[in-house]
Amino acid sequence: MEFKIGRDELNRALARIQGIVERRSTNPILGNALLRVGEGNLRILATDTEVSFVGDQPAEVVVPGEITLGARYLYEITRSLPGDRLTLSMEGGGLEVRITAGKSLFTLRGLSAADFPPVVEAVPGQGFHITGAGLKDLIENTLFAISQDDTRTGLNGACVQRVQGRSGDPCVRFVATDGHRLSLCDRPFQGEFAPPGGLLLPKKGLTELRKLCDETDAVFEVLFSDRDAVFRRGSLTFSMRLLEGEFPDYPQVIPESWQRRVVVHRPSLAEALRRVNIMSAERSSIVALHVEDGVLRLHSRNSEHGSAADEIEAQVEGEPLDVGFNARYFLDVLAVMTDDMVVLELGDTLSPCLIKPHSVEDRLFVVMPMRLE
Amino acid sequence: MEFKIGRDELNRALARIQGIVERRSTNPILGNALLRVGEGNLRILATDTEVSFVGDQPAEVVVPGEITLGARYLYEITRSLPGDRLTLSMEGGGLEVRITAGKSLFTLRGLSAADFPPVVEAVPGQGFHITGAGLKDLIENTLFAISQDDTRTGLNGACVQRVQGRSGDPCVRFVATDGHRLSLCDRPFQGEFAPPGGLLLPKKGLTELRKLCDETDAVFEVLFSDRDAVFRRGSLTFSMRLLEGEFPDYPQVIPESWQRRVVVHRPSLAEALRRVNIMSAERSSIVALHVEDGVLRLHSRNSEHGSAADEIEAQVEGEPLDVGFNARYFLDVLAVMTDDMVVLELGDTLSPCLIKPHSVEDRLFVVMPMRLE
Repeated sequence: MEFKIGRDELNRALARIQGIVERRSTNPILGNALLRVGEGNLRILATDTEVSFVGDQPAEVVVPGEITLGARYLYEITRSLPGDRLTLSMEGGGLEVRITAGKSLFTLRGLSAADFPPVVEAVPGQGFHITGAGLKDLIENTLFAISQDDTRTGLNGACVQRVQGRSGDPCVRFVATDGHRLSLCDRPFQGEFAPPGGLLLPKKGLTELRKLCDETDAVFEVLFSDRDAVFRRGSLTFSMRLLEGEFPDYPQVIPESWQRRVVVHRPSLAEALRRVNIMSAERSSIVALHVEDGVLRLHSRNSEHGSAADEIEAQVEGEPLDVGFNARYFLDVLAVMTDDMVVLELGDTLSPCLIKPHSVEDRLFVVMPMRLE
Repeated sequence: MEFKIGRDELNRALARIQGIVERRSTNPILGNALLRVGEGNLRILATDTEVSFVGDQPAEVVVPGEITLGARYLYEITRSLPGDRLTLSMEGGGLEVRITAGKSLFTLRGLSAADFPPVVEAVPGQGFHITGAGLKDLIENTLFAISQDDTRTGLNGACVQRVQGRSGDPCVRFVATDGHRLSLCDRPFQGEFAPPGGLLLPKKGLTELRKLCDETDAVFEVLFSDRDAVFRRGSLTFSMRLLEGEFPDYPQVIPESWQRRVVVHRPSLAEALRRVNIMSAERSSIVALHVEDGVLRLHSRNSEHGSAADEIEAQVEGEPLDVGFNARYFLDVLAVMTDDMVVLELGDTLSPCLIKPHSVEDRLFVVMPMRLE
């Protein structure tokens, strides 16, 4: 194996797999990337056996071949080397690769490509097309609400569905909940996607896929098999194993009516919440909202250290109300929203709060209440 | 107590004490700042009983008084509040302070000023004057070499001495060592400073003092008592308790002659060291230097993963030599040096390396060797 390649291009491709490879696995090859060199091309494959990446880079190939090398070392080496182009070469049947640039020489010991676990490079199945921007929206609006609790299998991923959008066009929906809050985002798509139930995408996979969505105009082809979800863009193939748990019957959590409706300036609400949260009881982050005509008051109390109160202008419909929420859950929602004005729909003191943009109905968030003292 | 004060000025003063106060002490008042309000002035005092800060801020005082308040809360509150000016007020003899700005109101429960530990506000003694820039140089060139090992009392601080500078003028010297490397920096000063032995300044005190040196032209008056070192600049008084251990007889560690002398471009050496260090044996950071005519070669080997080799141009005097060093110790030194060209003076394979700037003799560094396999 021997090839020459642009340093920056190789380093960028390696940056994408740093979050995928498993550095602390008992199986060391899961910390490696598979380099497959042939016909003017370097293919890089990485997998933790559940989340996988396959990407191609043009390369000046002298001798085709393949090897697996430590993904972290390879990334740090390519980042540190001088000059524009690197040469990677392997002598005979050995597993040692020489990486050279200028007067710098690294040797990196690899593991045999034959021992690399299978990686999803293509998959048959139904699917849809969506832009990087659309996929990014779907992920960012739901990722934070996925449960971290490994014992709640049905909540450890975002559920993907086909729904009828407000405009009548078919939409793909991502929805996630950890039992304390729920996030939902719809985006129009093109394709024949119509799964019978929901498909569950794991948090790690979505976190890594999010990093591939920065080319917002590029279109992803999204395909589902019984086992995997595959995201393809050009020569890049990213896949993740679907989770097996059952996503809860979430529509029953979404309030269908409201008794108080508050329209408020999103940055002002976020600023006031952050401020009042300084004095909320340790760990609980509980902040009381008091809704009345024309104003939203916020209040927190820490039994040991003191209290905080603030107020912001709001358009309020309905009777006055006191209700408590976890300020961090509100802040997570406000951070991913982009509208200047947001709508809070409230019931009584023990009802969840529905949060949505004022102008469009392409996403919504539900935060469960906390009992005030 | 009641006063109005600029938000940014108060927040800046509070930022300076965040590293001094002890948030995890069994004595909660050490996490507080003492606010002493009187005659157009707010004095802020903070101490962990060893490192202390006293600073004045002009304030519009309505009612003089004093109280201690949680330094962290006060900092976060002043940072989060809107507007330019804050009002702090305390009713009657209570210990609760109201902090208001715009429509925001915080109450913060304090502890009595009477219970605040004594803080060094002035000290008699001999001393000297030095600019913020000079003090910053002294600290930055030595701080990293102070031992972290609490059992080695004499090495847990930087030793301060009076020495004769190369120009013949008196200099103040900071010197620090952890047994593996030594750092020394001299700066001219004005004053009658001539301590009989060395004075030991603790690492925490120097770390915090460093943050006060950014006004490089401002002159500090430095005073030493038997117990404390005090640094004054305008209305600011910063003090630290001297350490009691004995600093080692360090001149015997500094090589007096060399067998190989290498002049090398500092940024190129740092870059090559960082690169080669990627493949050094885990934790040891051992990098081999090979010195020969016109070139400095660097080499590392990791028994499991591979090796790295690099070379940079160098002016070399003396015979070829192989010698091993901890790359991180070299990188610490190169990071604080400012000269483009640096000098390495080497003996044999078991001798320390002396590192100094090529153009001036105001600082030097010694790094002990590591045995190569």
